[in-house]
Amino acid sequence: MPPVEPDQVSHAVVLLSGGLDSATVLAIAQAEGFDVHALSFRYGQRHVVEVEAACALAVAAGVTDHRVADIDLRIFGGSALTADIDVPKHDSVDHLDPDEIPVTYVPARNTVFLSYAVAFAEVIGATHIFVGVNALDYSGYPDCRPEYLRAFEVMANLATRAGVEGSHLTITAPLIDLTKAEIITRGAHLGVDYASTLSCYDPIVGPDRPLACGRCDSCLLRARGFADAAVDDPTHYA
Amino acid sequence: MPPVEPDQVSHAVVLLSGGLDSATVLAIAQAEGFDVHALSFRYGQRHVVEVEAACALAVAAGVTDHRVADIDLRIFGGSALTADIDVPKHDSVDHLDPDEIPVTYVPARNTVFLSYAVAFAEVIGATHIFVGVNALDYSGYPDCRPEYLRAFEVMANLATRAGVEGSHLTITAPLIDLTKAEIITRGAHLGVDYASTLSCYDPIVGPDRPLACGRCDSCLLRARGFADAAVDDPTHYA
Repeated sequence: MPPVEPDQVSHAVVLLSGGLDSATVLAIAQAEGFDVHALSFRYGQRHVVEVEAACALAVAAGVTDHRVADIDLRIFGGSALTADIDVPKHDSVDHLDPDEIPVTYVPARNTVFLSYAVAFAEVIGATHIFVGVNALDYSGYPDCRPEYLRAFEVMANLATRAGVEGSHLTITAPLIDLTKAEIITRGAHLGVDYASTLSCYDPIVGPDRPLACGRCDSCLLRARGFADAAVDDPTHYA
Repeated sequence: MPPVEPDQVSHAVVLLSGGLDSATVLAIAQAEGFDVHALSFRYGQRHVVEVEAACALAVAAGVTDHRVADIDLRIFGGSALTADIDVPKHDSVDHLDPDEIPVTYVPARNTVFLSYAVAFAEVIGATHIFVGVNALDYSGYPDCRPEYLRAFEVMANLATRAGVEGSHLTITAPLIDLTKAEIITRGAHLGVDYASTLSCYDPIVGPDRPLACGRCDSCLLRARGFADAAVDDPTHYA
């Protein structure tokens, strides 16, 4: 927890996708006393409706600032989320292989997102960047590994004024060692409204709201998390 | 120089701004036998006309591929290049202080650009990323220091498939130790058409082409480089 004195508020950039993990991270950053500046991306993702969830979450949390960056990772493609590649659907998560990179992996996405967060942090004088990568993602995406985040922090401190002027920018991943069930337990305790979050990679337009497909890896991991945590799953499924 | 066999071409992503440095880097990458995939950015820079120069250079060089990413760093601002802050003008480069970060520094710009290059490299299977940072930039911009580039390379190899599958991505900055005069000498030897490059931070619209202001730091360093190299300066000044 940062030292928060009346005259000295610590500012943090929180990467907010609109999903379950980043909504929990937002709540954690606020609980730790940070003044939160949220950052979301329209990057050409097929589930761009997640950005609407991010906006609603940011408003509900009363963040100081929320910026949405329009960037287009479709110019590179290479992922089921940014190219014309089907999102795999299954009935359970039993097919997941920790040694295999899923087709939903977006090349260098976390590096691009964190780089923007570094730019934002530098401009507003934030000392921390919060990112919701976790142990489950870690099993398949290279840019969710703890050693990656440590290397990013080293690089970021050489990239910016921090490296010249002696301050320090910290990359914080409070979910890194948590299971999905532990994340949900933590978030429920902090009052996160998971009904407002959207984790599905391939949501369907519903009459009132987007509906989760229930069969992509993200939906399956999320559903299992609620079950394991013994928390009612508020997800709106198709 | 990479091992180039008839059946095995090495691919490189070259960050191409349209300026003198990156045009030289493009020529170096091709001279070293790489199959070049150029990458440029419209990032909200006031001198966005440099992207037209990049396109012309890419076509003239016959690169395999050239992509222009639309990203908007104006949402953060914080620089004379991306916010409503005047570009400083002088009559010589004598005012430059190696210990001071100029107002034309764009927070985390090289980190954002290199992150996109990592995404591009991963999708196309490129083994190298070429970037035109050099010793003169290094004197003022934190993200032009050799230790920054080394840290970025470490991070990039943990961020991507390379880190999982055992391949390696190299960040190459062939100009890092060169003065502007040495860069120009090298590029002239390689046949770079510097008349087609645009380095000015604050160009003026001319009847046929953009005209360099001649008084921003970038113009002054470039002009001194041509003088020191004893190469005719083909820049079109206002």
